[in-house]
Amino acid sequence: MSQPIDIAVIGATGTVGETLVQILDECDFPVGTLHLLASNESAGSGVMFRSKSLRVREVDSFDFSKVKLAFFAAGPAVTRSFAPRAQAAGCAVIDLSGGLPAEQAPAVVPEANPAVLDNLKAPLQLSSPSAAAIALAVTLAPLKGLLELERINVTACLAVSAQGREAVNELARQTAELLNARPLEPRFFDRQMAFNLLAQVGASDAEGHGVLERRLVSELREVLGLPSLKISVSCVQVPVFFGDSYSVSVQSRTPVDLAAVNAALEAADSIELVEEGDYPTPVGDAVGQDVVYVGRVRGGIDEAEQLNLWLTTDNVRKGAALNAVQLAQLLIKGLV
Amino acid sequence: MSQPIDIAVIGATGTVGETLVQILDECDFPVGTLHLLASNESAGSGVMFRSKSLRVREVDSFDFSKVKLAFFAAGPAVTRSFAPRAQAAGCAVIDLSGGLPAEQAPAVVPEANPAVLDNLKAPLQLSSPSAAAIALAVTLAPLKGLLELERINVTACLAVSAQGREAVNELARQTAELLNARPLEPRFFDRQMAFNLLAQVGASDAEGHGVLERRLVSELREVLGLPSLKISVSCVQVPVFFGDSYSVSVQSRTPVDLAAVNAALEAADSIELVEEGDYPTPVGDAVGQDVVYVGRVRGGIDEAEQLNLWLTTDNVRKGAALNAVQLAQLLIKGLV
Ligand SMILES: NC(=O)c1ccc[n+]([C@@H]2O[C@H](COP(=O)([O-])OP(=O)(O)OC[C@H]3O[C@@H](n4cnc5c(N)ncnc54)[C@H](OP(=O)(O)O)[C@@H]3O)[C@@H](O)[C@H]2O)c1
Ligand SMILES: NC(=O)c1ccc[n+]([C@@H]2O[C@H](COP(=O)([O-])OP(=O)(O)OC[C@H]3O[C@@H](n4cnc5c(N)ncnc54)[C@H](OP(=O)(O)O)[C@@H]3O)[C@@H](O)[C@H]2O)c1
Repeated sequence: MSQPIDIAVIGATGTVGETLVQILDECDFPVGTLHLLASNESAGSGVMFRSKSLRVREVDSFDFSKVKLAFFAAGPAVTRSFAPRAQAAGCAVIDLSGGLPAEQAPAVVPEANPAVLDNLKAPLQLSSPSAAAIALAVTLAPLKGLLELERINVTACLAVSAQGREAVNELARQTAELLNARPLEPRFFDRQMAFNLLAQVGASDAEGHGVLERRLVSELREVLGLPSLKISVSCVQVPVFFGDSYSVSVQSRTPVDLAAVNAALEAADSIELVEEGDYPTPVGDAVGQDVVYVGRVRGGIDEAEQLNLWLTTDNVRKGAALNAVQLAQLLIKGLV
Repeated sequence: MSQPIDIAVIGATGTVGETLVQILDECDFPVGTLHLLASNESAGSGVMFRSKSLRVREVDSFDFSKVKLAFFAAGPAVTRSFAPRAQAAGCAVIDLSGGLPAEQAPAVVPEANPAVLDNLKAPLQLSSPSAAAIALAVTLAPLKGLLELERINVTACLAVSAQGREAVNELARQTAELLNARPLEPRFFDRQMAFNLLAQVGASDAEGHGVLERRLVSELREVLGLPSLKISVSCVQVPVFFGDSYSVSVQSRTPVDLAAVNAALEAADSIELVEEGDYPTPVGDAVGQDVVYVGRVRGGIDEAEQLNLWLTTDNVRKGAALNAVQLAQLLIKGLV
């Protein structure tokens, strides 16, 4: 249908990058030439795309004028180094790392704030927000008209894959060591991750808030268009390989109509609502799927103004790669 | 010092019962004859106590007039069957199962509401509340004077041992099966528990609230003496063997003085406060310890009235057996 677009994926050998290439492969996105970029560590390796093996190259020497669109999935430092080059070459940027400020690259979740795209000016730069912001935005967007949102309380139970390949390998290695009664030698995580919970994910600031926690608050406010929404969030690293889960408690200013909430969630395309009595889990439900699973929809105990939810989603797919590809599909009209 | 007291432990072969016997063994509690009771399944087996092997007997045929105090740690149904017999025989009851209504057996956490003991009338019956209520009461009691508590929001990440021996064995078995790439056959849990999160623990009622969630709300209100405190709670079963963790967000009506909160937590005997930058974990910190670990003490993001905390505690020890023994130590004066 559309004219093919030449594309670069930076971080193509990573957890998110690999899935992004796979989604581009599966969907009918009009990909012209695909350039797979990474660090010098995996330059030279091959990645399959549409039945051909594509050679991975180093991002450092890449000429961004060869492409019209670049996905950045290699960490915020890489985005900050190379996005300006891409931009100077007239290439649109979709960043998945949180490396660009909101003023330069607005955060967009197609289910929540697609209208941002209508007013976007060159250089085209978008942020695909954190997996947590995507899951919450997809779930809360259809409820915005039903609730007078006052406060959202989130405990985010993050899979180790949220920290990339090395973290996945480390959980597997630690688990095997413990089951074989060998002494545990933490490497990627600074302590035992297997059969344990780590109450902090990444660095924290002087006030004790984690970088990811701050990021979720600002991204969610931005994407929902509610700049003064009160949000409290705690990120916890759990011994799960893939699939983030969110325990969410919403305060409304007015009583919550649970039947209307259920109907709105049921009607949303990107949500799979799990009926009362059952509940969704990361493994078994969310992983590998393109939707946010929502369950345990219930009110408060002795409180009509409360709504409690449990969300789970594939952090790599719906929480990153798929959202970025959806953004590209929206951007596409401006590029061809 | 004190005159020895003859004691029965019902559920002595279980996760909590075994630890209870061990704590009675370690501490200077004046135990006279100790009667270990269970179902007919483990009747006849031996349990070590003060260097002697004690024979486990069936509870059904036990004569409660032989003892002055009975700990019930064998599930609510067993408590409801046998506590009336114990009571009729003039035996004081400490129930750990949540099987007795608050009017008959008030819930007590010595760090929070020891004064209940002053007005206790025969028949002496106390409830040692759920591990979650104990951890939260121990932490919030020293803060009650500092905060104008309006609402508490809790995501309780429960270790599998919270469900007893079989659940512990099941997590180990499932993990080994998955690591050895054998097909998974869930038995105790109805689905994969290893490397997964289950968003519901036990049965839930018509409004979608879990039994444990309801129990936490009523016990915490009772123990803190705040009958109209707003509490929202979500229980999640996590793939951790021992050690519950709680992500807690507290709303105060007035701004929170974080320095005063830290000082109060630091001063509390039953709390180990972990300084900013670090955080406590179930494995490595809480398990095997007699205190509640508190960390990630921080305010809200753009909100002065909020306090966020992360708690972790040994669910079997501090969350059950130890609290029950502490209650016995308070009761003792009335018994000898
Ligand atoms: N994982 C998630 O669930 C998730 C969700 C949302 C957003 N994100 C974000 O997506 C980004 C990637 O995460 P990930 O989980 O895919 O990490 P990952 O598995 O560790 O992969 C990192 C990727 O970045 C590349 N890379 C690292 N340093 C580089 C450098 N100096 N120059 C060029 N390429 C470099 C790696 O290439 P080599 O093979 O050469 O090392 C690899 O392709 C991060 O910013 C992360 O925060 C992740
Ligand atoms: N685990 C925790 O973290 C925790 C914390 C707070 C409270 N609790 C409560 O403590 C109680 C025990 O939990 P647990 O984790 O120790 O369970 P567990 O490991 O499964 O042990 C159950 C114990 O109860 C006995 N029992 C079962 N059915 C019986 C019957 N019909 N008659 C007599 N004894 C019977 C078992 O004896 P056999 O050996 O004969 O089967 C065993 O000693 C539960 O009510 C639980 O809710 C547990």
